[in-house]
Amino acid sequence: MAERLGPPLADPLFARLAIIGCGLIGSSIARVARRKNLARDIVVADISPNVRARVEALALADRVTADPCDSVTGADLVIVCAPVGANATIAESIGPALAPGAIVSDVGSVKGAVVTAMAPHLPKHVYFIPAHPVAGTEQSGPDAGFATLFHGRWCILTPPEGANEAAVAKLHRFWSEAGSNVETMGAQHHDLVLAITSHVPHLIAYNIVGTADDLAQVTQSEVIKFSAGGFRDFTRIAASDPTMWRDVFLNNKDAVLEVLGRFTEDLSALQRMIRWGDGDGLFNLFTRTRAIRRSIVESGQETAAPDFGRRDPDQ
Amino acid sequence: MAERLGPPLADPLFARLAIIGCGLIGSSIARVARRKNLARDIVVADISPNVRARVEALALADRVTADPCDSVTGADLVIVCAPVGANATIAESIGPALAPGAIVSDVGSVKGAVVTAMAPHLPKHVYFIPAHPVAGTEQSGPDAGFATLFHGRWCILTPPEGANEAAVAKLHRFWSEAGSNVETMGAQHHDLVLAITSHVPHLIAYNIVGTADDLAQVTQSEVIKFSAGGFRDFTRIAASDPTMWRDVFLNNKDAVLEVLGRFTEDLSALQRMIRWGDGDGLFNLFTRTRAIRRSIVESGQETAAPDFGRRDPDQ
Repeated sequence: MAERLGPPLADPLFARLAIIGCGLIGSSIARVARRKNLARDIVVADISPNVRARVEALALADRVTADPCDSVTGADLVIVCAPVGANATIAESIGPALAPGAIVSDVGSVKGAVVTAMAPHLPKHVYFIPAHPVAGTEQSGPDAGFATLFHGRWCILTPPEGANEAAVAKLHRFWSEAGSNVETMGAQHHDLVLAITSHVPHLIAYNIVGTADDLAQVTQSEVIKFSAGGFRDFTRIAASDPTMWRDVFLNNKDAVLEVLGRFTEDLSALQRMIRWGDGDGLFNLFTRTRAIRRSIVESGQETAAPDFGRRDPDQ
Repeated sequence: MAERLGPPLADPLFARLAIIGCGLIGSSIARVARRKNLARDIVVADISPNVRARVEALALADRVTADPCDSVTGADLVIVCAPVGANATIAESIGPALAPGAIVSDVGSVKGAVVTAMAPHLPKHVYFIPAHPVAGTEQSGPDAGFATLFHGRWCILTPPEGANEAAVAKLHRFWSEAGSNVETMGAQHHDLVLAITSHVPHLIAYNIVGTADDLAQVTQSEVIKFSAGGFRDFTRIAASDPTMWRDVFLNNKDAVLEVLGRFTEDLSALQRMIRWGDGDGLFNLFTRTRAIRRSIVESGQETAAPDFGRRDPDQ
């Protein structure tokens, strides 16, 4: 694994990294930053006393504080890793304490709303470069993080027009060293791409798990017993952090509703195929989707192991 | 693994097992029947010359034939493992050759339509006991099968009213020895339970993968790159065998349309929560679905490994 992430840097990229919010993502950033020597000092701020206690027990940071404003003193890189809905308050709190020339970034799954929430509170003398590491698991909290979470995953930067190129390059380097493939795009395009690859899939998963829970004729114990038929694959993503996902949907409303509209139209067409017994139509769709799966496995974003490797290794 | 399935039986349960259709499921039955000595003789019938060649190369059977009727001669257990749409033709073909007292079963994911398709063609002197092993992977064909596919999974028997109890008990024993937990229910109830736990989840997965493929503003390469955000979990089940799934939807129309109707109603409500910015409503649903995930993991139908164990084991 050490080899997979490469050796630590001889000289750290940043003097002080402040991580505000230390859940799955924040704690994984702390771990990889320490492992790769990406920052000389790591300061963590979190409002939860439990999280702060775990961060100290796990020795993830050089200093732990409850106050975001306190954490950014002297930091040349600040990454906000809180649920998106907290970003405006955090930006307001840290704005006055930010050091000139500091890079301020985040990890939110939506980007347009993050810019709207944070930019007004940030002083002119910092570089604001929103980012979104497309990585995660269904687990939450500082214990769930790990240093290789970002390895081989994409990190999308959405620098505003006219952003300082050196600052963008430095943040790019940070994420590359963390193991990510880095891509740059506009905030609005990001929000549409993520609506289809992440937000709407999560919404659909939450929805079908809820529907199953409500069916009067089928007991919950039956749903659980027979979930290996396909249902359980949906429950993984429907187990993700509720606060984070509430904020995603409230903050990427337009793109989510657009993609959801398309999804519903397509579903109506599929429903009609079933009603009319259109076997060829069904077969054609099912064949097309199989090819997309193949591309995802070939691109390295997925394992080809049957059933995600749940299968018994000894045949 | 040998220990997980237990030792082979001293005396086989059946003298001759005929497996008609030797894909993922049929070949897994052949493997576990051989491993556990569940039948003295194993005969496989498959219409595909390629499949027959692989079955011979893998030495999965004592005899391989193209003709279903030929395969059932002298068999005291016949399991039809073809796509559900082929069952009527197969039953018609094997009917006259079935031995008195033989048990005839299947593995179809729908049960009501299987009974309607097969029962009229079967002679009075056999025991017809439909079955559905709720197990599988997204892969197909005789090379994809393995002996432990059914281990720890459920197998549902749907014997008709007044079915011979000794025959039901013997088939129950067969599936228990294959490693399954066996449950008995009516065919109609089965079809509704499976509509929610398997059929509609597959349909939704096919649908969203299709929607992603159709979005003009987002390229396919972007969908593939950023699929780790949730989308890829849907592509696994949308990669399942197209013929099998076409037949499932054509043959479980009523239950699928009923569950799909509920799903769509729930989705409309969720859509309104987003439109109206109802954060509490979203949070409540997302919290409820998390609990269901926990139950599925606790029941042993799922691994608790984050991200299905895709995560790097060395943290």
